[in-house]
Amino acid sequence: MSPTTLQSWVQVPADSDFTIHNLPYGIFRSSDRSPRAGIAIGDYVVDLVMLAQRGFLNAIPLHTDVFSREYLNDFIALGKPVWQAVRRRITELLTQGNTELQAFADEVLVPARYVQMQIPVKVGDYTDFYSSEEHASNVGKMFRGPENALLPNWKHLPVAYHGRSSSIVVSGTDIIRPKGQLKPPDAPAPTFGPSRRMDFELEVAFVIGKPTQLGEIISTEAAEDHFFGFVLFNDWSARDIQQWEYQPLGPFLGKNFASSVSPWLVPLEALEPFRVPGRAQYPEVLPYLKYKVILFSTFNWKWPCSRKTLRNRYSAGLISDTSTGTSVSNWPTIR
Amino acid sequence: MSPTTLQSWVQVPADSDFTIHNLPYGIFRSSDRSPRAGIAIGDYVVDLVMLAQRGFLNAIPLHTDVFSREYLNDFIALGKPVWQAVRRRITELLTQGNTELQAFADEVLVPARYVQMQIPVKVGDYTDFYSSEEHASNVGKMFRGPENALLPNWKHLPVAYHGRSSSIVVSGTDIIRPKGQLKPPDAPAPTFGPSRRMDFELEVAFVIGKPTQLGEIISTEAAEDHFFGFVLFNDWSARDIQQWEYQPLGPFLGKNFASSVSPWLVPLEALEPFRVPGRAQYPEVLPYLKYKVILFSTFNWKWPCSRKTLRNRYSAGLISDTSTGTSVSNWPTIR
Repeated sequence: MSPTTLQSWVQVPADSDFTIHNLPYGIFRSSDRSPRAGIAIGDYVVDLVMLAQRGFLNAIPLHTDVFSREYLNDFIALGKPVWQAVRRRITELLTQGNTELQAFADEVLVPARYVQMQIPVKVGDYTDFYSSEEHASNVGKMFRGPENALLPNWKHLPVAYHGRSSSIVVSGTDIIRPKGQLKPPDAPAPTFGPSRRMDFELEVAFVIGKPTQLGEIISTEAAEDHFFGFVLFNDWSARDIQQWEYQPLGPFLGKNFASSVSPWLVPLEALEPFRVPGRAQYPEVLPYLKYKVILFSTFNWKWPCSRKTLRNRYSAGLISDTSTGTSVSNWPTIR
Repeated sequence: MSPTTLQSWVQVPADSDFTIHNLPYGIFRSSDRSPRAGIAIGDYVVDLVMLAQRGFLNAIPLHTDVFSREYLNDFIALGKPVWQAVRRRITELLTQGNTELQAFADEVLVPARYVQMQIPVKVGDYTDFYSSEEHASNVGKMFRGPENALLPNWKHLPVAYHGRSSSIVVSGTDIIRPKGQLKPPDAPAPTFGPSRRMDFELEVAFVIGKPTQLGEIISTEAAEDHFFGFVLFNDWSARDIQQWEYQPLGPFLGKNFASSVSPWLVPLEALEPFRVPGRAQYPEVLPYLKYKVILFSTFNWKWPCSRKTLRNRYSAGLISDTSTGTSVSNWPTIR
C-alpha cells in the first residue's frame, strides 16, 4: 500500500493533500481569471485554459475551451481515453526534471490563496446510498431503536434514495439553518420552527463520467469504467425534521436544504495505489451484486473525524441503481 | 365554472382537448422542421419559430431563437410577463375574425399528424408529493395493511420524496420492464428477475417557472407565481421491487426505471375558469401551510380512468418544499 514516490518540481508542503499522485480537478476563478478548470498541486492551481492555450496539450484531441466552462461536465463527457491522456501529460509536465513548463510557470501556476473555488460539476441526479453498515446501524438506532436498526433488506441490496440536486453547494458556502415541522414522539402535535438537531454525514460521492441509456444494465466488472472520480460530500441532516417526516417515503425536508461537496474532484486513477480487498458479502448476495472489485483505504480527511476508509462500503451501488434499467446520463453524484 | 366561449378560425373538432382556451406549449419536430416550440390548437401545432420570424411577436421582448431549442426552459426563464404576453398575442391571432395569420397559415400551422413530440422541459429536480388522500390510503393498504394505511404525519405535512430526473421520458416512449429483487413476504430470501407487479400512478405535475434562492421561503399566497403550468405524469411503479426495498429510505429502484410525461404543458392561466375551493384542511394545519388558494376541477383525460380532479389535492406541496430553505432553481417537476 505504499504510494509511488514520484516528485514534482513544484514545491509541495509535507502536509499537503495535493502531491503529484493526487492531481484533482476543480473549477476556480480569481480576480483576473474567469471560471475555469484547474488541477491542484501543492499550494498552486494549474490553470488548464492557459496550459492548453500555450499548446502543452496539443497531442490530446480536445478543444481548449472545454476548460473554460463553469463546470467540468463537458470535459468529463470527452471520455476515459481523454481523461487518461490529460492526467498522463500533466503528470509528465509537473515531474521533477521536466522543464517544459518552467518558463510559463507564472502564467500557468496560480497560488491557491488567490483563487475562489466553485462547485466542480453540474449535478443531474444525486443518489444517496446507505452503504456503510456502521452508519446504517447508527441512524437506524436513532430512529427505530436498537432492535430495528438494520432492516431485513439491508444485507441483500444497496438501500438508497434520490436527493436534492439544486441545493448541492461547494464546501465553505454558508448553510442556512432549515425550518420545518418538529414533533418529538411525546408531543401531541407538530410545531414549526428552526431545526434543533442539525447533524452531518461525511460521505464519499462518486461522479459518473460514462453515461448509460435507458434499459442498459452495468455489470460489477464494468462499473469502474463509469466512474470519473470522487468528491467528499456532507449530507447535512436535520434529524428532528427527518424523524417526523421520513415514513413511508424516506428523507426529504430533513435533507433538501443543502448538501456540501468538496471543490476538488479526485480521479479514480489517483486512488489506484490504495486498493484493498472489499468487505466480505455475507449472507451471500444475488449474483448480479457480487463483486471482485477491490476498494480503497486510508484517506486523510480534514474533518472532525480524521481518517476513514472506503473499505467499509458493503454493497455495489451503481450496479443496483442500473439493474432496473434506469439511465445515469446526467452525471449523478452517487455515494 | 363555465369556460369562456371564444372561438378560433382554426377548426377545432368537438372532442378536441385543444380549444383556444387551452393553448398548451410543447416541443415538436417534423421531417422538415428541427425541434422547436409549438402550441396546440385543434389538429394543428402553431410553429412559434415561424410565428416569431414573421414578426407576429415583435411587440414582446424576446429573441426568436428562444423557441428553437430542444426544451422550453429558456422560454420559461423569461418570466411571467413574457408568458402572459405570448399567450395573449397568440389568443388574439387565433381568434375568429382575426385575419393577420391567414396568409401564413401553411407555414405557421403544422398538421399534428406530421409532427413528433419531444419531452417539453429539461427536468432538474423532480419531487413526488403524496398528496391525494385516496391514493395515499390505497398504496398504504397495499404495503402496510388497512390499519396503517395513512401514517400520522400525513394530515400535517405534504409527504414527498425526490424521484429520478434522468429517466423521465415523453409519453409514448416504450418502457422496458425493470428487473430487480423480488421478495414476497413469505419467501425466505429475495430473487432477481423482471417485475411481475407493474403499476402506474396518474399524476398532475407542475413545472416551476420562477426560481428561488437557497434560504428563500415561498408563502401560500405567492406560490402560484412560481407555476408555469402542468403536465400529466405517469409515475410507473414496480410494486414488488418497491415492497422489498422501500423501508427505511422510500421508493427508489421501484420507480427509477422510467416516468412518462405528456408532451403538452398546459399554462396555469388555461385552468383559471376551472377554479374551485380547495379541500378543507382538517385537523387544522400549521399556519405556514394554510391556503386560501382555490384549486382546479374537471379535467377530461384520455387515460383508463377518464375524469379526475385536482380538488382532491390536500396539501400545499411547494410551500412545504421550500419551508426548509431549499432552492427550486432547476425547474423541478413536482406533482
